[in-house]
Amino acid sequence: MAQITFWFEFASTYSYLSAMRIEEMARKAEVDVIWKPFLLGPIFKAQNMDTSPFNIYPAKGGYMIRDITRIGENRGLTFRLPEPFPQNGLLAARIALTGLEEGWGKEFVRLVYKAEFAEGQDIADRSTLAAALKAAGAPVEQAFALAATPEIKSKLRANTDEAQAKGIFGAPSFTTGDDELFWGDDRLEQALLWSRR
Amino acid sequence: MAQITFWFEFASTYSYLSAMRIEEMARKAEVDVIWKPFLLGPIFKAQNMDTSPFNIYPAKGGYMIRDITRIGENRGLTFRLPEPFPQNGLLAARIALTGLEEGWGKEFVRLVYKAEFAEGQDIADRSTLAAALKAAGAPVEQAFALAATPEIKSKLRANTDEAQAKGIFGAPSFTTGDDELFWGDDRLEQALLWSRR
Repeated sequence: MAQITFWFEFASTYSYLSAMRIEEMARKAEVDVIWKPFLLGPIFKAQNMDTSPFNIYPAKGGYMIRDITRIGENRGLTFRLPEPFPQNGLLAARIALTGLEEGWGKEFVRLVYKAEFAEGQDIADRSTLAAALKAAGAPVEQAFALAATPEIKSKLRANTDEAQAKGIFGAPSFTTGDDELFWGDDRLEQALLWSRR
Repeated sequence: MAQITFWFEFASTYSYLSAMRIEEMARKAEVDVIWKPFLLGPIFKAQNMDTSPFNIYPAKGGYMIRDITRIGENRGLTFRLPEPFPQNGLLAARIALTGLEEGWGKEFVRLVYKAEFAEGQDIADRSTLAAALKAAGAPVEQAFALAATPEIKSKLRANTDEAQAKGIFGAPSFTTGDDELFWGDDRLEQALLWSRR
């Protein structure tokens, strides 16, 4: 079966759009999806950016809100920018890594994105994450404990290093088995097609 | 008849993609297109960028080449990055403004983009522009003379000011009668739909 890797960052607004549709799109395309959380912070730093490009370039940031709102309206998704933006998604990413091994990861990821970008909740807050864990049917305390282990911490660092090595500079990104890179929710269709070539 | 404005900059790689397809897309959608050349230089400067973001962020620049090459392959368009990049499109933009009043403007614009991004020619070179003018059926010497008039120079400045006032920060951009802004060749379909609402 064809396969793509879905590289997502919890602070990324366009990753929200992809997280909410990628499984259905991939199922229709008969493509398997590997979900990989990573951190954009170190990748932005390597490009001399100390925050989101949407903060560095306010005209682009204002447009992004309008663009996602419009797209969301077509897909039945509400959107609001959380405060602060970008959010700190470190703990959420570590928990997601745990969950992707345990089977409740994808649902947890979607619930975190919904809390963050539909409801404007702070995802650095443990209670936001605990609620998402509970709703995803995950063992809350065990998930927090696993997310704090050196294994999970180094796995997230390895994902980020791997993303950077593949030339990834933003999120969401999609890579195929032959290392073709696609950037942006609006390239998901192309990435799925490419993976089936 | 519904209408959109197509904001393009000759140095912009993604504007090339739109210039080559917008008339056909708009005809099918029964939308009228106003072509407006403008300059990104002053708009980038206002965002503290002294060159193309594709030069400031090399990972993004490398991806852009691959992205446009892939899209071009699907549309029968070849693509190469000209040297130097970005090109100086000031004179080309002034001539285009003249031509858009005279009737040969759209064909001139497409021919300049083709010379620049399919053939790697330097569009700051008058001989490149003269060849495009000739191929577009324009009066070559008269076009150069008109492009040098204060009226055309100030019209191009006015376009750039208008773009900035509308929140435009990149090219191509599309605006509708109700001032909805769409950025990027990949938003052309959405812009056309929006203009018919």
